[in-house]
Amino acid sequence: MFREQIKVLDCTIRDGGLINNHHFTDEFVRAVYKALSKSGIDYMEFGYRSSKLMFSPKEYGAWKYCDDDKISKVIDGIESDLKISIMVDAHRVKEQVFRPVDESPVDMIRVATYVKDIDKAIDMVNKTHDLGYETTVNIMAISKESEFDMVEALKQLNSECKPDVVYVVDSFGALYSEQIEYYVKTFKKHLENCEIGIHCHNNQQLAFGNTIEGIIHDGNYVDGSLLGIGRGPGNCPLELLVSFLKNPKFNLSPVLKVIQDYMVPMREDIEWGYIIPYMITGVLNEHPRAAIAKRSSEDKDKYAEFYEEILEAMD
Amino acid sequence: MFREQIKVLDCTIRDGGLINNHHFTDEFVRAVYKALSKSGIDYMEFGYRSSKLMFSPKEYGAWKYCDDDKISKVIDGIESDLKISIMVDAHRVKEQVFRPVDESPVDMIRVATYVKDIDKAIDMVNKTHDLGYETTVNIMAISKESEFDMVEALKQLNSECKPDVVYVVDSFGALYSEQIEYYVKTFKKHLENCEIGIHCHNNQQLAFGNTIEGIIHDGNYVDGSLLGIGRGPGNCPLELLVSFLKNPKFNLSPVLKVIQDYMVPMREDIEWGYIIPYMITGVLNEHPRAAIAKRSSEDKDKYAEFYEEILEAMD
Repeated sequence: MFREQIKVLDCTIRDGGLINNHHFTDEFVRAVYKALSKSGIDYMEFGYRSSKLMFSPKEYGAWKYCDDDKISKVIDGIESDLKISIMVDAHRVKEQVFRPVDESPVDMIRVATYVKDIDKAIDMVNKTHDLGYETTVNIMAISKESEFDMVEALKQLNSECKPDVVYVVDSFGALYSEQIEYYVKTFKKHLENCEIGIHCHNNQQLAFGNTIEGIIHDGNYVDGSLLGIGRGPGNCPLELLVSFLKNPKFNLSPVLKVIQDYMVPMREDIEWGYIIPYMITGVLNEHPRAAIAKRSSEDKDKYAEFYEEILEAMD
Repeated sequence: MFREQIKVLDCTIRDGGLINNHHFTDEFVRAVYKALSKSGIDYMEFGYRSSKLMFSPKEYGAWKYCDDDKISKVIDGIESDLKISIMVDAHRVKEQVFRPVDESPVDMIRVATYVKDIDKAIDMVNKTHDLGYETTVNIMAISKESEFDMVEALKQLNSECKPDVVYVVDSFGALYSEQIEYYVKTFKKHLENCEIGIHCHNNQQLAFGNTIEGIIHDGNYVDGSLLGIGRGPGNCPLELLVSFLKNPKFNLSPVLKVIQDYMVPMREDIEWGYIIPYMITGVLNEHPRAAIAKRSSEDKDKYAEFYEEILEAMD
């Protein structure tokens, strides 16, 4: 039996873009958009709307900025009910422009924030909500926050803005199922008028299992990506989510087809998935940056040494 | 806080042997034994004790038979508290010999069985229990069994033999966490004097998450393997289990070292892990044999077609 309220968001292009500085080809983005449209997925996230003053277009591809006209061009002519989301980092807002929603292909603005930047996130939610967008707040690195600060932030969100969804984001892939239960319940307790979302990273092969745990405790917005693509260990594989959710509107075949046509060859060129250095940072509740650096070095498979290095750095 | 009763069994050589007909080198088996001994793992499973009349030594390596003398030779001179287990298929018993436990390096006999062969399993448990071994019954393919037949089998186990552990075995990698909860609770309800174990396959990246779920519901025997090696999608990664369990006797470093020295190079030669055809058989609660065949064919990455083929075959 399925729960109609559950909405699936694919973050292939956005989270995957963190691996290749958002240099996905138009052809690939269009193929993903087509496949997700046929599969009955609810949202597709194209990337970030970043400031070009902060991030140079010489270094980053189009999906770092997600200009409205660029998105419109890529999806032109494809029949679809798929909604489009883009992400904004609350602490990296500068001169980005947001048109009113009816002049934009974008439906939803997802505001990624740390607890310390919650006031900036609230500003952005209010601004884009007033322009007619659906809005979310994605509270990153939740496994590192103190209970006190987190609850303060949730109370502020509850009283100072009206996001449609607030996400538990396990940025470090550090959480186990009992902790997911705790966070989802705590979020629900303090947020009266919005849905709870779950965004998991796969450091410990728990992204799918923890997403299910979130669903069990009434999280209704869930993120996945094709073959789990995403920075480092990646995300919850979309194909597993689609198989698990029994809503008859979902169709697995187009998801499998775009994986075989694009993701399998892509994995020859860029790396993501269950790889021990990311497992180690996940287990130790640390940012994956040291693991990313290790994977670019000659010692990329020196796992035992890496573990000792990280333990020492934390001591 | 850790639960002292939890025992970890490594099935690298046994389940991994299903990929290469049990042709692991003595050097590798010895290296695994050394690493697990240093890591504080409780049991290491060396393979099957199979009948040479049923499985020819021309085709299979030493770990298909696990002769006592062969095991003794491989572990000779290594200081260790690690207990040794071997597996026997209840429906493939012929002329295999079991010495009394004090004349054997083996501590535990694990009897793998389908529900329909439960009488054969009970015979083997009684026979090896009388020889002094710890014994377990591993009920395979539990996701395919009817409630009625399964409960009958559990009642028989409860009254006709005294296994130390009875395992829930998710052979097809088909179960979700709520089903693991159901099976573990049902097993506990009908089995009065033994521990419950969990052996998961990783078709849907749930082997670790479901093992945690089993632990939450008081399963105390858990199986893992190095880098998750095992037939098809493999098993619960031992390194994740060791990291999750807080018992200070466990030491992650030797596990990471043997993975980097042996498992990473091995994965260049033999395939296991999260691969879409196994995900498909898992999702559909089917034996992985069609996926194994597909992965040996030219069409190994034709996922959408494979999905349609399996759906059609099931119809």
